[in-house]
Amino acid sequence: MTQNVYDTPEFFAGYSRLSRSIQGLAGAAEWPAVRALIPNLRGLRVVDLGCGFGWFCRWAREQGAARVLGLDVSENMLAQAGTATPDAGITYARSDLEVLDLPEASVDLAYSSLALHYIENLRRLLATVHHALVPAGRLVFSIEHPIYMAPARPGWQLDSSGRKTWPVDSYSVEGPRTTEWLIKGVIKQHRTIGTTLNLLIELGFTICHVEEWGPAAHQIEARPELAEELERPMFLLVAARRSLT
Amino acid sequence: MTQNVYDTPEFFAGYSRLSRSIQGLAGAAEWPAVRALIPNLRGLRVVDLGCGFGWFCRWAREQGAARVLGLDVSENMLAQAGTATPDAGITYARSDLEVLDLPEASVDLAYSSLALHYIENLRRLLATVHHALVPAGRLVFSIEHPIYMAPARPGWQLDSSGRKTWPVDSYSVEGPRTTEWLIKGVIKQHRTIGTTLNLLIELGFTICHVEEWGPAAHQIEARPELAEELERPMFLLVAARRSLT
Repeated sequence: MTQNVYDTPEFFAGYSRLSRSIQGLAGAAEWPAVRALIPNLRGLRVVDLGCGFGWFCRWAREQGAARVLGLDVSENMLAQAGTATPDAGITYARSDLEVLDLPEASVDLAYSSLALHYIENLRRLLATVHHALVPAGRLVFSIEHPIYMAPARPGWQLDSSGRKTWPVDSYSVEGPRTTEWLIKGVIKQHRTIGTTLNLLIELGFTICHVEEWGPAAHQIEARPELAEELERPMFLLVAARRSLT
Repeated sequence: MTQNVYDTPEFFAGYSRLSRSIQGLAGAAEWPAVRALIPNLRGLRVVDLGCGFGWFCRWAREQGAARVLGLDVSENMLAQAGTATPDAGITYARSDLEVLDLPEASVDLAYSSLALHYIENLRRLLATVHHALVPAGRLVFSIEHPIYMAPARPGWQLDSSGRKTWPVDSYSVEGPRTTEWLIKGVIKQHRTIGTTLNLLIELGFTICHVEEWGPAAHQIEARPELAEELERPMFLLVAARRSLT
């Protein structure tokens, strides 16, 4: 089972204070770029892999999604999601994405925000998603960017001229990375962009869009602290389509 | 016109001493990975964008390519390529890839090794390639990896624990990078992986394979100095297919 760090009280408390937890989608700087990849949701059946507090599930319903299945490993988050807005069109369910099964051709859009980099057996999960999507169904997801995740000791460094840099090492050495994020001992799975994309292609997905997220000029103007995100990408966004055959 | 640094005497002399110039394809550590992306060449019409000394052109003919067009901006390199092995099936021609035109549906495989990162108007060149390829025709290319190219001051650095790192900055700031490679003032064009892939997708290519090249274990065993290439990828390899429609 994937490490369920979200139900560690200290982590949950810290995570609950993030702007993306309090404000929801509008609190996530990468959301406008992610949203641009989401198809028209009217009448669609959506699954959210790692739904957290359910912000995307509720938004999808507002956009006209017929029904939304929100899956997460965290009991705490699901409890909070379930009480937020009663909606018979949303089902929240506890699920270990490592062993998830979904009915064949039951989903029009699979969505995942910053969850897949926790998954050890990504091939199994993406094969499950492929099986669950209708032909030409969409998969849209974000993960931490491998540049962000690769280093043995992730963090900014100043070079001799005072320039902020992000020292990269171990980029081609895939596998677990244990880091400190809110608490110590958070385990993520580092994969190169190539590995992730080739896995999708092998499983029968067509790559539609790949974005190494950086803040737009107007975002930096409103929040100058975002400027450092231009130095190295923090997020990787991918949109893919299940092939017709 | 693209900077023609290859005809600068000092650069040409330095480049001519590289193992990939002397030994050809076998002297390029990434060649086995590139070769794995090349389709069966028997009877195919091939264009090599940035053919240099013509090593790939001659190899393609050995593999059964019907005819090969080798294009390069460097007169010095073309002169050497042309005298290497007389072969009526290979045409070497001087060409500025920024303004290249090719006949419609005249090519089965377009190949390019470490040349496209010099191109300013990559959209125009890739559109030309798309136009020139037959439906389902292949494009296989390598470029310098954007992690390698992005930094204002590319180079290894030791962190406080003595670990070799590659400090990245300016990753999301696309555009020219002026660096020293053999000589000072070599101008390359930095683009994110996302930008390159999305350009291909917009033009009607299907992405078939993306590889952030790192040395294989047996390569490191034979040449231990290659181990550092695991820390940050130097090359990006892409295989794409012209869509059928």
